[in-house]
Amino acid sequence: MSYQFHSTKSHQTESSIEADFHYETTHVEVSKEGVICTPIAKDYKFKVDKKIPKMGLMMIGWGGNNGTTVTAGILANKHHICWTDRRGVHEPNYYGSYTQSATMRLGATSEGEEIYAPYKEILPFVCPDNIVVGGWDISKVNMADALKRAQVVDYDLQRQLYPYMKELVPLPSIYYKSYIAANQDDRADNVIPGTKQNHLDTVRKNIRDFKAQHGLDKIVVLWTATTERYVEIKEGLNDTAENLLKSIASGEEEVSPSTIFATAAILEGCPFVNGSPQNTLVPGVIDLANKHGGAVMGDDFKTGQTKIKSVLADFLVSSGLKLQSIVSYNHLGNNDGKNLSSPSQFRSKEISKSNVVSDVVKSNNIMYKEGEHPDHVIVIKYVPYVGDSKRAMDEYTSEIFLGGHNTIALHNTCEDSLLAAPLMIDLAVLMEFMTRVTYSIDGKEFKNFNSVMSMISYLLKAPVVPKGSPVINALFKQRECLDNFFRALLGLPCDNHLLLEGKTEHFF
Amino acid sequence: MSYQFHSTKSHQTESSIEADFHYETTHVEVSKEGVICTPIAKDYKFKVDKKIPKMGLMMIGWGGNNGTTVTAGILANKHHICWTDRRGVHEPNYYGSYTQSATMRLGATSEGEEIYAPYKEILPFVCPDNIVVGGWDISKVNMADALKRAQVVDYDLQRQLYPYMKELVPLPSIYYKSYIAANQDDRADNVIPGTKQNHLDTVRKNIRDFKAQHGLDKIVVLWTATTERYVEIKEGLNDTAENLLKSIASGEEEVSPSTIFATAAILEGCPFVNGSPQNTLVPGVIDLANKHGGAVMGDDFKTGQTKIKSVLADFLVSSGLKLQSIVSYNHLGNNDGKNLSSPSQFRSKEISKSNVVSDVVKSNNIMYKEGEHPDHVIVIKYVPYVGDSKRAMDEYTSEIFLGGHNTIALHNTCEDSLLAAPLMIDLAVLMEFMTRVTYSIDGKEFKNFNSVMSMISYLLKAPVVPKGSPVINALFKQRECLDNFFRALLGLPCDNHLLLEGKTEHFF
Amino acid sequence: MSYQFHSTKSHQTESSIEADFHYETTHVEVSKEGVICTPIAKDYKFKVDKKIPKMGLMMIGWGGNNGTTVTAGILANKHHICWTDRRGVHEPNYYGSYTQSATMRLGATSEGEEIYAPYKEILPFVCPDNIVVGGWDISKVNMADALKRAQVVDYDLQRQLYPYMKELVPLPSIYYKSYIAANQDDRADNVIPGTKQNHLDTVRKNIRDFKAQHGLDKIVVLWTATTERYVEIKEGLNDTAENLLKSIASGEEEVSPSTIFATAAILEGCPFVNGSPQNTLVPGVIDLANKHGGAVMGDDFKTGQTKIKSVLADFLVSSGLKLQSIVSYNHLGNNDGKNLSSPSQFRSKEISKSNVVSDVVKSNNIMYKEGEHPDHVIVIKYVPYVGDSKRAMDEYTSEIFLGGHNTIALHNTCEDSLLAAPLMIDLAVLMEFMTRVTYSIDGKEFKNFNSVMSMISYLLKAPVVPKGSPVINALFKQRECLDNFFRALLGLPCDNHLLLEGKTEHFF
Amino acid sequence: MSYQFHSTKSHQTESSIEADFHYETTHVEVSKEGVICTPIAKDYKFKVDKKIPKMGLMMIGWGGNNGTTVTAGILANKHHICWTDRRGVHEPNYYGSYTQSATMRLGATSEGEEIYAPYKEILPFVCPDNIVVGGWDISKVNMADALKRAQVVDYDLQRQLYPYMKELVPLPSIYYKSYIAANQDDRADNVIPGTKQNHLDTVRKNIRDFKAQHGLDKIVVLWTATTERYVEIKEGLNDTAENLLKSIASGEEEVSPSTIFATAAILEGCPFVNGSPQNTLVPGVIDLANKHGGAVMGDDFKTGQTKIKSVLADFLVSSGLKLQSIVSYNHLGNNDGKNLSSPSQFRSKEISKSNVVSDVVKSNNIMYKEGEHPDHVIVIKYVPYVGDSKRAMDEYTSEIFLGGHNTIALHNTCEDSLLAAPLMIDLAVLMEFMTRVTYSIDGKEFKNFNSVMSMISYLLKAPVVPKGSPVINALFKQRECLDNFFRALLGLPCDNHLLLEGKTEHFF
Repeated sequence: MSYQFHSTKSHQTESSIEADFHYETTHVEVSKEGVICTPIAKDYKFKVDKKIPKMGLMMIGWGGNNGTTVTAGILANKHHICWTDRRGVHEPNYYGSYTQSATMRLGATSEGEEIYAPYKEILPFVCPDNIVVGGWDISKVNMADALKRAQVVDYDLQRQLYPYMKELVPLPSIYYKSYIAANQDDRADNVIPGTKQNHLDTVRKNIRDFKAQHGLDKIVVLWTATTERYVEIKEGLNDTAENLLKSIASGEEEVSPSTIFATAAILEGCPFVNGSPQNTLVPGVIDLANKHGGAVMGDDFKTGQTKIKSVLADFLVSSGLKLQSIVSYNHLGNNDGKNLSSPSQFRSKEISKSNVVSDVVKSNNIMYKEGEHPDHVIVIKYVPYVGDSKRAMDEYTSEIFLGGHNTIALHNTCEDSLLAAPLMIDLAVLMEFMTRVTYSIDGKEFKNFNSVMSMISYLLKAPVVPKGSPVINALFKQRECLDNFFRALLGLPCDNHLLLEGKTEHFF
Repeated sequence: MSYQFHSTKSHQTESSIEADFHYETTHVEVSKEGVICTPIAKDYKFKVDKKIPKMGLMMIGWGGNNGTTVTAGILANKHHICWTDRRGVHEPNYYGSYTQSATMRLGATSEGEEIYAPYKEILPFVCPDNIVVGGWDISKVNMADALKRAQVVDYDLQRQLYPYMKELVPLPSIYYKSYIAANQDDRADNVIPGTKQNHLDTVRKNIRDFKAQHGLDKIVVLWTATTERYVEIKEGLNDTAENLLKSIASGEEEVSPSTIFATAAILEGCPFVNGSPQNTLVPGVIDLANKHGGAVMGDDFKTGQTKIKSVLADFLVSSGLKLQSIVSYNHLGNNDGKNLSSPSQFRSKEISKSNVVSDVVKSNNIMYKEGEHPDHVIVIKYVPYVGDSKRAMDEYTSEIFLGGHNTIALHNTCEDSLLAAPLMIDLAVLMEFMTRVTYSIDGKEFKNFNSVMSMISYLLKAPVVPKGSPVINALFKQRECLDNFFRALLGLPCDNHLLLEGKTEHFF
Repeated sequence: MSYQFHSTKSHQTESSIEADFHYETTHVEVSKEGVICTPIAKDYKFKVDKKIPKMGLMMIGWGGNNGTTVTAGILANKHHICWTDRRGVHEPNYYGSYTQSATMRLGATSEGEEIYAPYKEILPFVCPDNIVVGGWDISKVNMADALKRAQVVDYDLQRQLYPYMKELVPLPSIYYKSYIAANQDDRADNVIPGTKQNHLDTVRKNIRDFKAQHGLDKIVVLWTATTERYVEIKEGLNDTAENLLKSIASGEEEVSPSTIFATAAILEGCPFVNGSPQNTLVPGVIDLANKHGGAVMGDDFKTGQTKIKSVLADFLVSSGLKLQSIVSYNHLGNNDGKNLSSPSQFRSKEISKSNVVSDVVKSNNIMYKEGEHPDHVIVIKYVPYVGDSKRAMDEYTSEIFLGGHNTIALHNTCEDSLLAAPLMIDLAVLMEFMTRVTYSIDGKEFKNFNSVMSMISYLLKAPVVPKGSPVINALFKQRECLDNFFRALLGLPCDNHLLLEGKTEHFF
Repeated sequence: MSYQFHSTKSHQTESSIEADFHYETTHVEVSKEGVICTPIAKDYKFKVDKKIPKMGLMMIGWGGNNGTTVTAGILANKHHICWTDRRGVHEPNYYGSYTQSATMRLGATSEGEEIYAPYKEILPFVCPDNIVVGGWDISKVNMADALKRAQVVDYDLQRQLYPYMKELVPLPSIYYKSYIAANQDDRADNVIPGTKQNHLDTVRKNIRDFKAQHGLDKIVVLWTATTERYVEIKEGLNDTAENLLKSIASGEEEVSPSTIFATAAILEGCPFVNGSPQNTLVPGVIDLANKHGGAVMGDDFKTGQTKIKSVLADFLVSSGLKLQSIVSYNHLGNNDGKNLSSPSQFRSKEISKSNVVSDVVKSNNIMYKEGEHPDHVIVIKYVPYVGDSKRAMDEYTSEIFLGGHNTIALHNTCEDSLLAAPLMIDLAVLMEFMTRVTYSIDGKEFKNFNSVMSMISYLLKAPVVPKGSPVINALFKQRECLDNFFRALLGLPCDNHLLLEGKTEHFF
């Protein structure tokens, strides 16, 4: 199916899409006298470089369950490898990927039929089949055996992918004992020796080599290794780009492996995504990204339990039901679960998961008084037997009309890595895409978007935002943001869902 | 807190709000050559009559669980009656009501703080405390004893409300045996005698009398009686206003009680809402509403299981997860459950509940081939012991990346009437409000909105829509529609969720 | 490990075990004056023929999911076929089989350590590995392809079993359209032609041929085909052996396929088990079994939801908690689910499932008045997508102390055939075993047990019992019965669980 | 209904029941050669003192949720106080009590009808209505206000009980900060001053005073206060009665409040029960009990989640299903939950809860190799909003036939104190009863049962047992023990569940 956009707002050249966008928003001032709302508008121009680059994706923790699943999925799709399980033959797909399997509403026909289109067919995204994957891991097991170790994809697929993956071996990675759980120690047989500065230099060289070796135009670097403990944020240590680089040079303890990878990526001009919950993106990293026109985003892939929570909490509170307690229990048996069984790693996760309802609760001052919060408990347990088949058991209790209660109990069999992998592909595809979009305000020169790529918050559990920008966790709002951005690029108006043509006289 | 809207688009006079709204949407044409998307715009003017009327709410099935709960809730709030249960003292509230307990996002401050406001403080809605309630019921039990029979609100509140409600007795209602379950027969001791024409005339007189007796400006009529079987739609029978009125006059079997109430409401100039799943709003009713400038809406209050389903199905499919089976089990022990234990009444409910995912599935032609649907099972059972404490047990199975499965099992203790009652209040408040809003296109004369008030689809399980307008079930889209409509009335731009001021340079 | 039983009560010869058992029970008389309890004792002798026969198992519905799974399991164990899935390599086992994987408490050591033994090591059971399987099916698909169709066992096991199973083809079976769902019609390509008498004769010949062909000593016949509708029980039709045979000869409509198979089995001297819920074992069948010294048992394999229910209901009521409602929802996507989607087949299932709490409720006249029952709802739905992975969703609500409530909601992923298959093996093994046990009372001649083998009620959802014997559904009581019977055979005292040696002075 | 026992084994005098009981059990020896099983028998005589004493129940933690609920329940039953909630009028009952609301199978009639009798009608138990309650608490709130604080029983019952309970004020209790959570500190306004010796002496005096004041024959002392941390067991400290008393005299830190209460109870001749998980019953306490002919039992009331677990684990493993993981999540909002949010108190609970499957797993050496265990996780979280309405969310995963899995997920709304209170009443009634039963072996003199009253293990989560006696957690075995003991007292044979009269020829 071909899609045409007959809009005066957007036009395509051979090499680019250029779109005019009249951005409208509401500015609010709160004072003792009250709340004053003022509409504001800005005229934007967006430019998208249409040239789809040859792209690489380098993952830290490549040999882990997420990394192997992404690799297996891309290879299975690229080579169209089908496999058989007890239910029959399966074809590879990208289910769970927003860019590859979801659709965007375009509009409606005169007969009132709503028409949707696959994102990948209307926007010049990199096709995941063409991504060259590589990366680092503290374990030197080759990717074919790592796929077996992960126990995620079906045996018949493991078997067929073996020849494709056995030659792929992760590069040595950075391993600082204090950052991840002690139980990871015996896995660490593939580490870069030397000082922190040497680690940074080595990783930078790895990136350059990978690019050269595969003739790549661009590389996205993605942290999918296990959760680290939080680092301290301190003046002089990691508050500015300069201090951060100095701290690396002097081998400061409070510089984490993930921060070194982020630094390397930025210095090599690669977008960087932190898919784990720790605070990799310290102020110094963001400062560095700003200075180098880099693109960073985090934290923590938004899958499973938290994703549903950001939907249900929004649903309940926006229905006027007073959500009073949220209890979220998780257990899993993969290496991530093993690592998280250690308290300081769990703490990182707990923080990333617990903020997800803050914006929703804060939105309602009828039901929640200043400072009032629902009870909120988060537990993650390591249960080896369930393997990668993560289980979430949640309970949401709400106070309803006249003192009644609504209780939702939920048992969710998630399949941890099979939910995460397509999201990782989306993050790679969208981060790459965002670096091809520039904007101009009021006719001024075209610039890159803010280094913190909060446009793709939809995919992250604890989205990092530019300073002064609100954190949005509500899933449908995050999605509207992305959709409307894409509409703007295509010259379509934002979707206001009003469908006035049906509610008043019908004018088309 | 006071709210001010410094917009050039909207201005308020003593008696009205007038707003200019530049409506933008996308028109789509689908042909063999492809899909062509064309932005369309219309200049609207909206006018809201600010005069809040003295309003009545007349419910059919007033003595049922929903009707008594609405009445009790309004009285408890109006007289601020507190009550005690084992957990302590409770104050009355309108939790679960969109208009009374939910908030709308206004915008953000310069510091990036998002500001929300209660709907009821920014729009001239009727305050539910001031609604005068009344209605019809086939059982002549007074409302105080009906409240006890319902077993919904706490004993201490039942007790305190007794003197307020014991003098309230439902008017005789219309009872045609074939329309509801046989098990309702012994409840029917309060019925209007005579022919269908006599029923219509009596109901009309009841409305006029109620209006006069309480000095009301406006009355909303709301069907909250138990589910009827479907009626046949037939040429000559109920296809036009004229034929419908003729059929009533001649006592045609295929005219249901609810259709007679709808007809009476329209003829008396009252907005009418059908809160049960049957097809009350036959073409003849809608034609009649069009001719009389009436306002009708239905079907079936969107609470509990279906509401969550319209959220979860949307969430899953829009995440690129292929929802493959939905199994929805329900049981309840109130009179609604008893009536639905009869097959033809259940059938009405089944239809209303099963369509709720159609639009979501249809939106994705990557995962669902033409005509492909998830397995979808709906069961409702009568379990007297659980009373009004309705239980929903659902299972959603999705196919995910590389043949994996995501399974969500859910146990929801709903409290049937406590979820429905605030929605009924919302329907009354919003239907009344919508009849005070008129529009003008391109500077032409002001008109009423389409008789089918699909603007408030958010509150209905199987929203009726004007001809040629798509049915939207996805909850967040329904809500965006309402919110953006209200924004337009206040002169605020629609919410595009882009927050570009944070993602590019910050301009306020 | 070897087990020795130093008991004066039992002695073993080369060919048999002979045991003396002093059976004690309590006889109760209820009259107006009250309840009179009188201990009664009988001296039994049991004799077990130790010669383990070469045994065949012929299943009706052999090519269905249960039949193929039993066959696959026996072959995988016999040939020790290991298989690989995504989690790694698996060895065959008999998990879920009481005779093969469960243990019996023997007693305790002087140090208070409790010692258990596998049943199969202390009693002369047939080893399932040595059972020769065969049977009938209305579908002529060979067993290897039927295994694929079933989608139950892992692909890698399906693959390896293919050569073992492809030559196995079910014998034509009996197909009367009115007995099973219309949706089974297109499966019926392998049916015995002719009259009911011819069907009986053919099946008898099949049994004789199978015995001869494989040199078998004994054959157990097991109905595992899909559920039939109930037959009418009528004087002259099926009330006596004679009438039943006459009705078959005259081709009476109300003689079901399963009853013909039962008749054939009895006439050929084979134990017969009905594993589906319909009333196969009409009085005429039981009369026939009595006359021929046959052994029959039924109805319906006790797996999954009903098994847990018989545990939880017993647990709750025996804890003094007043179970007030049981709601049992099921869905499955295999052919059994498809057949049960037809109302009259479902009705058979509903009856078999609903009686399971009767004995438990009847046991407590403090909480339940005469005729009082918990609400009890049973639903089975056909959801193709879940396949053989049956789901049970149950809710148990109990009234507790001072008007409180205890609510247990349960989601159970059952894997229908993988739970049923080991039970079917147990039924075959135990039925065969029971036919080798005879008893003598007070020194009189040795006789067979009652034809209705209620000793193995443990394995059946709606256990048939001899006239005048109570139906026991409580699972732990059923198990105690079997255990104590086996203890008696081994010369061990029944287990009274008193452990008095620890509670008074310790005497060993 | 009257019950008569026409048994030659038991006869009743005016003051006592005397019963002969031929106890049979199996002794097992395990050596390299194998397992040797030898039946053993002993002739017991049991004597029950029929005189029902005027009994007191003194609870430590009286003012907590359990203590107030027990008190309210006894008073409501004694004075037959009915109350109303939204569902209607309720009568007081003892639902959840084994002695008051459960029944024992007596036997069957000639027609095969099974007959059951309430325990309380066939055995000379104290009637709970007549128990005089009192006790200690570190909070001096009177019992009427404590009942309100507990938020457990319905408001209308709280209200009516107010005058009965307002004069009841707990005695000052023992409070050592290190033993319970720091968050309990502000509750401790009612503590006995002085040294540990003084605490012991005061408590002893309290018991004597209470006895005198109410003219009681016997007092049971029951710890239902919040969970303490574990104490160290050390030679010289608490290993013998003598050392324990010395340690109290010298004020050793490692003597807990609960141990002092146990000591006082024993020294005053009162049975003592520890209803919390900590190791109150140190060897020195048991030694003291032995020396004084005392009766002690513990630990931790067996309600809710653990009770079901002891049923489900038994059910699964005894069905030959390999239980591989048990995940038990709990949350509650009462003061017990608050105290358990502290790690060392939680640790006590975790130990008591985790042992509950040990005996079940150990029973099966086919499926579990030496040292092999299912994964087992226990979590308890404090969620204030849910109050006393404790929630348990469990998942049981089992490996089944041919590599399949059975997964049971369970959401249980428990109502913590309403489940515990009737059990506490049972413990009081049964402990009292057990101290009226003596035994004689082989005609020797009558003696008390072992001081550790493991006969009532049925009611305890982590039953303490006499040295050399196995711990039985399987619920149905625990119940069989009690039932058979009662049968023995009544001269009825133990229940072997064989029902041979139906399975062979019918002889009555």
